[in-house]
Amino acid sequence: MPPYDRGVTDLSQLPLRDSLRGLSPYGAPQESVRVAINVNENPHSVPEQVALHIVEEVARQVPGLNRYPDREFTALREKLAAYLGGGLTAANIWAANGSNEIMQQLFQAFAGPGRRVMSFTPTYSMYPLITKGVDSEWVPVRRHDDFTLSRELVVEAIERERPDVTIICTPNNPTGTATPLEVVEAAYDATDGILIVDEAYVEFQGPGASALSLLEGRPRLVVSRTMSKAFAFAGARVGYFAADPVIADAVRLVRLPYHLSAITQAAAGAALDFAPLMLEQVDAIRVQRDRIARGVTALGYVAAPSAANFVLFDGVPDSHRMFERFLERDILVRDVGIPGTVRVTAGTTAETTLFLDTLADITDRDGVAPATLGKAQATR
Amino acid sequence: MPPYDRGVTDLSQLPLRDSLRGLSPYGAPQESVRVAINVNENPHSVPEQVALHIVEEVARQVPGLNRYPDREFTALREKLAAYLGGGLTAANIWAANGSNEIMQQLFQAFAGPGRRVMSFTPTYSMYPLITKGVDSEWVPVRRHDDFTLSRELVVEAIERERPDVTIICTPNNPTGTATPLEVVEAAYDATDGILIVDEAYVEFQGPGASALSLLEGRPRLVVSRTMSKAFAFAGARVGYFAADPVIADAVRLVRLPYHLSAITQAAAGAALDFAPLMLEQVDAIRVQRDRIARGVTALGYVAAPSAANFVLFDGVPDSHRMFERFLERDILVRDVGIPGTVRVTAGTTAETTLFLDTLADITDRDGVAPATLGKAQATR
Repeated sequence: MPPYDRGVTDLSQLPLRDSLRGLSPYGAPQESVRVAINVNENPHSVPEQVALHIVEEVARQVPGLNRYPDREFTALREKLAAYLGGGLTAANIWAANGSNEIMQQLFQAFAGPGRRVMSFTPTYSMYPLITKGVDSEWVPVRRHDDFTLSRELVVEAIERERPDVTIICTPNNPTGTATPLEVVEAAYDATDGILIVDEAYVEFQGPGASALSLLEGRPRLVVSRTMSKAFAFAGARVGYFAADPVIADAVRLVRLPYHLSAITQAAAGAALDFAPLMLEQVDAIRVQRDRIARGVTALGYVAAPSAANFVLFDGVPDSHRMFERFLERDILVRDVGIPGTVRVTAGTTAETTLFLDTLADITDRDGVAPATLGKAQATR
Repeated sequence: MPPYDRGVTDLSQLPLRDSLRGLSPYGAPQESVRVAINVNENPHSVPEQVALHIVEEVARQVPGLNRYPDREFTALREKLAAYLGGGLTAANIWAANGSNEIMQQLFQAFAGPGRRVMSFTPTYSMYPLITKGVDSEWVPVRRHDDFTLSRELVVEAIERERPDVTIICTPNNPTGTATPLEVVEAAYDATDGILIVDEAYVEFQGPGASALSLLEGRPRLVVSRTMSKAFAFAGARVGYFAADPVIADAVRLVRLPYHLSAITQAAAGAALDFAPLMLEQVDAIRVQRDRIARGVTALGYVAAPSAANFVLFDGVPDSHRMFERFLERDILVRDVGIPGTVRVTAGTTAETTLFLDTLADITDRDGVAPATLGKAQATR
């Protein structure tokens, strides 16, 4: 039956948008392995007590799924505001199906064709993809050689490039680098556009690190968060932001109506009811992160200082070969496309031990390259 | 606290995209009323047996929500393919958070800046909004005065406008009008672009109505569906399409990774396990639809022939006033912006009775205007 045969038509025969021709889809490998430490997931299951509460709250919604969900997801926004604290209310909060959708909605509102989105590379690989998805220009600016950001670097770049949207990812993916709040403040003062501080990993950095404290009086500042990492809720797809209420009003102009299902709203709300329990493994994960950093250093690699739940280390002779070596041993690590480096997520104690033992074996076989960290080049 | 005070900043002070200035968000009223027959929901709750199965399947996923979901949602695609039948496999299927997201992804892949999206008005009000959201040009073409589409009208419009994407909504929202498959075939032959047949309401039309039977040999044809209407699953937000596998490959280039949560995948899959039970109220709803059509006709209005779960009727002296009159009686109907008309969803028997009784009262007070159906103008 012709249409069901993949051989009949290929993409080049379809009237695909020109800007998409030749692209490949985003694709961190999803293989069934013993240890997956490649996508910065929290390795700890949802605690039983929380799981039961989530199921109860979802169960309440199921009979009424014939009706559309609350388009304003007010109860969830109230719970997110209470979780963040600091006087925030539901009016300050917006949520979406993962922080990727948060970024897409913000770019649709404040970027789009003829506008420019800037961030500091190496950084989260979805930023340029989402930027191109809304037909904006992606403006990558290199971080310092040690992946840090200074006031001078950020302000100079903003004044030179005049981006419509600037993103500072802190702690930064894939390097783990934290950016001080004074740099965020300087970036805000330098730009007339929107400044997004992507704090997907901030709970691993610890108290006092968040730019939430800067929101007052800064209506163009957006602090983006996710429930996927510290909160151990990646499978539920909940990203959110806190900002002046006018930012949420802008996003309401571009969001698809009813974008958050009644089940997502209920599940996320139920998880937030047990926020301390959901977050209780954060300290344990930080311990493993620091163990990884010490372990790779002892083997001769150079670890980028990380405030997140992963470590990027340098001195790898061939990143793709190391990825393959780990995969042969049923372990997924991440080749993020920065030559000489591999990124590994802090998992459980046992996973970290297995990772370090395996890395020692691989290092015995393949050796360590001259550490280039400090001169590492992002691929884009 | 300034940022939390809505008075400090308004949208005009933000660097919003120019194309969004002055717009208002999509907003069917979501008010707490006795009877909501305004958004074409299925009035019947999810049957208890299905609800239990959904909760069980979701419960299985909850402990592992710390991990990302299957990015390819393969199990769900398999179940959707089996539900549609006709030799379709998972490779032919794509799904997203509601059919609005399906449209957005298709427009991102095949429309975008400098391209044009055409449909036949009056039609679904989200098409122009999603079109503008991806910076394409919206090309509305008027239906015949009785809201039908003929081969001549469709082919002439396609040849004149050369759209990149053409949408035929059948049965059409908000008029209920079905379009014969021969018109779909003619539209496909006339266009070099993508043809989307939006079948959100097709289950109410009955067997044999679907353009699925046209997929073979037509790689630019996409049949869009939703679980929101006949399937009574609006709150779960699941839209999907069937097409040549190459269409799904194109959408993979623009979809946000992990866009469907593990919970959504499980809940939708569980509902599909009981498809006949989920759909068992369809016949009852058609009975109410026909009762509404007869009832409004008896009161002097003119009902547009409907193959969906709603009726648009004409002869209303003032659509907004009638909306208000119903709201005073705790009933939500829909003023879709076509002067002289109101749209009402087929609900339960009791809801239909209440609607017709209330309409009789309102008609006694406000009268019936000259029926303009046949000359009705869409607002856009």
